[in-house]
Amino acid sequence: MIVDAATGAGVRTLVSHDGISPRVCEAFADHQDESPLLVIDLDVVVERWRRLSEQLDGVAVSYAVKANPAPEILEVLVGLGSTFDVVSPAEVDACLAAGADPARLSYGNTVKKRSAIRHAFAKGVRTFAFDCEGELDKLIDEAPGSTAVCRIRCDGAGAARPLSRTFGCRADRAAPLLRRAVAYGMVPAVSFHVGSQQFDPEAWDRALASVADVRAELRADGVELASVGLGGGLPGTYVDPTPPLEGYVEAIARAIRQRLGPEPPPEIVIVPGRYLVADAGVIRSQVVTVSRRDGLERKRWVHLDVGFFSGLPEVVDEAIRYRIVADGPPGRPSGPVAIAGPTCDSLDILYESTPYLLPLDLASEDHVHLLSTGAYTARCGSLGFNGFEPMAMVVLPPSDRMVWGPG
Amino acid sequence: MIVDAATGAGVRTLVSHDGISPRVCEAFADHQDESPLLVIDLDVVVERWRRLSEQLDGVAVSYAVKANPAPEILEVLVGLGSTFDVVSPAEVDACLAAGADPARLSYGNTVKKRSAIRHAFAKGVRTFAFDCEGELDKLIDEAPGSTAVCRIRCDGAGAARPLSRTFGCRADRAAPLLRRAVAYGMVPAVSFHVGSQQFDPEAWDRALASVADVRAELRADGVELASVGLGGGLPGTYVDPTPPLEGYVEAIARAIRQRLGPEPPPEIVIVPGRYLVADAGVIRSQVVTVSRRDGLERKRWVHLDVGFFSGLPEVVDEAIRYRIVADGPPGRPSGPVAIAGPTCDSLDILYESTPYLLPLDLASEDHVHLLSTGAYTARCGSLGFNGFEPMAMVVLPPSDRMVWGPG
Repeated sequence: MIVDAATGAGVRTLVSHDGISPRVCEAFADHQDESPLLVIDLDVVVERWRRLSEQLDGVAVSYAVKANPAPEILEVLVGLGSTFDVVSPAEVDACLAAGADPARLSYGNTVKKRSAIRHAFAKGVRTFAFDCEGELDKLIDEAPGSTAVCRIRCDGAGAARPLSRTFGCRADRAAPLLRRAVAYGMVPAVSFHVGSQQFDPEAWDRALASVADVRAELRADGVELASVGLGGGLPGTYVDPTPPLEGYVEAIARAIRQRLGPEPPPEIVIVPGRYLVADAGVIRSQVVTVSRRDGLERKRWVHLDVGFFSGLPEVVDEAIRYRIVADGPPGRPSGPVAIAGPTCDSLDILYESTPYLLPLDLASEDHVHLLSTGAYTARCGSLGFNGFEPMAMVVLPPSDRMVWGPG
Repeated sequence: MIVDAATGAGVRTLVSHDGISPRVCEAFADHQDESPLLVIDLDVVVERWRRLSEQLDGVAVSYAVKANPAPEILEVLVGLGSTFDVVSPAEVDACLAAGADPARLSYGNTVKKRSAIRHAFAKGVRTFAFDCEGELDKLIDEAPGSTAVCRIRCDGAGAARPLSRTFGCRADRAAPLLRRAVAYGMVPAVSFHVGSQQFDPEAWDRALASVADVRAELRADGVELASVGLGGGLPGTYVDPTPPLEGYVEAIARAIRQRLGPEPPPEIVIVPGRYLVADAGVIRSQVVTVSRRDGLERKRWVHLDVGFFSGLPEVVDEAIRYRIVADGPPGRPSGPVAIAGPTCDSLDILYESTPYLLPLDLASEDHVHLLSTGAYTARCGSLGFNGFEPMAMVVLPPSDRMVWGPG
């Protein structure tokens, strides 16, 4: 039973509370029998893209398609004038199908088959990332004259999901690689990634300090960077609080001024994925079982019909901790739970260490909502492990009023 | 270049070495351009099923469908007379489509929606697992008169992937639950699971000691168990050595004799998944990049075109460590590597702590083979995260000669 938080009256229509917008509530009401169900509200994506573009003056906002490649999302962002960061031939094709200009795509995966580079280059992509000599050589061969973006390593400190171990060359290796790129007719550029779901707005300043060093070294040879990529890292709204967007914007703008000076490279790009789409998504899930298997322990195990294999890989190590809201009257007595998915696999434990609370009267067939689940979910689900179908997704088109946004 | 290990001559046909059978080599040769590619050899499945059935006298061998639900696997096992353990409505349907008798299916997932139980019961399934009162009550309502299998908890010690935290009731809770089941007209049974990829053959003895206690308690009330389920846990052949099958068979047979006595329950079932299909599978993967990003560190990063999101979820925490063999002449100088997949996600690091070695001359576009990858792979791949297609799978039908088996 979904209950109106305002009146307390039992109704079958979810209403706006706990960060779920009225139109998302309506969408769930229109799909009563589907579970689990992910609803994506494009109003939130539009509002986020505009807000970031307006606040980060002089910085282009590029969407990291991997966060959620739904065609509807790509189309609305094409309409707004966004650029796109892609990581595979299929993502190149998805952006072009949505109407994107290939010249506005950047191929951000530093790890690429030659066939993938050829595919993208043939389609008109002219910007490619790399982080080692072997990958640069592939670009020189397969994407001649393109912009070669050297991704430099960040320490990843402060991020829920650091990326520092696999990607990025050491900063002192960047200038020699970029000199080689220039020697072979490529256009030199630099990027970095401070780690996904970055809690510390100062992380960009530390990375830009390295960029400034690389830039100075190249300038001594008369080589100018064509662009600087600020990567992703802007947060979604999960259990662990992050600073407001303004805190990030202020810190990033200051770092750009201080590290890149009055004459920055011609293009500066930020590449949010999570920030644009995470808060646009809500998953409704049915409770399958609530059990105290020992009969004694205080903590109940709540099994949902959504889990790791349905499209929640980010629960590994409880790195991303979604806000979970039970339907029903607010303020009911709650108690500690561990939360698991519907399969028989030990990976399908979502949260066991994180102290989640859910109502004591939570029962089989009740609904819960997992908030801010628009990023790294829908396409991450398995093909059908344990025989469970992929989670359904409904995308709500932009409405006229795009002022509402959760969090 | 794939090289004949016997002659050292460069040939384009993979030959039998390193545990890859000639017919699997042929299948790869027939699909030169597909990568990554999983080949499943049904000869191995048949040989394993027969060997286990023969050696474990008096124990029925039931296939845990979730390990790999490929229709070809189910069909060949139906032909052998196997029973099946299913965990979802779709798995019920897959077994029936393969020609299985619904009376020979056991629904082993203790966490079930009522709609799932109704679906299975309507199709003729009459055996269902449970591990708490709420789930038993669902069975009483939706599957009247069925066999209610109480899953009791094991400690999971000795297993690469223990299942003890989420599944199974405490042993001293089983008898009261089963008395309740009997009072409502259900047929009582017990099962357990010693944990997946169990290294210790004595784990079954510890679990059967608990079963014996439950059985004694019920017998005092005149209640006899209809069956005992020995779960899965038999190993695949990975990096970390396990005892030979004979060690498990001997320990399990002894435990049955000692714990269940001269008059055991009428049915004893073992439920291998991994053991039957893991060693039947080989993945061929192309090397995308080999890099020393720092230029200094000894360990190279090898990115393959297969990874966590392609269907290797068991690499989380490096729990399952596949044997990985590079094509080319054996005995070449090798060095330490970390191994990652093709996506931009930090979850796509396969092995960083485990000291894998690969040839020093390994290069982009070389092939490697991941052995014993037939279980928990194909259906675990994502729907297309990062835009990478699910891994292709080829299933080789049983041949006349079924004497060969790796390991």
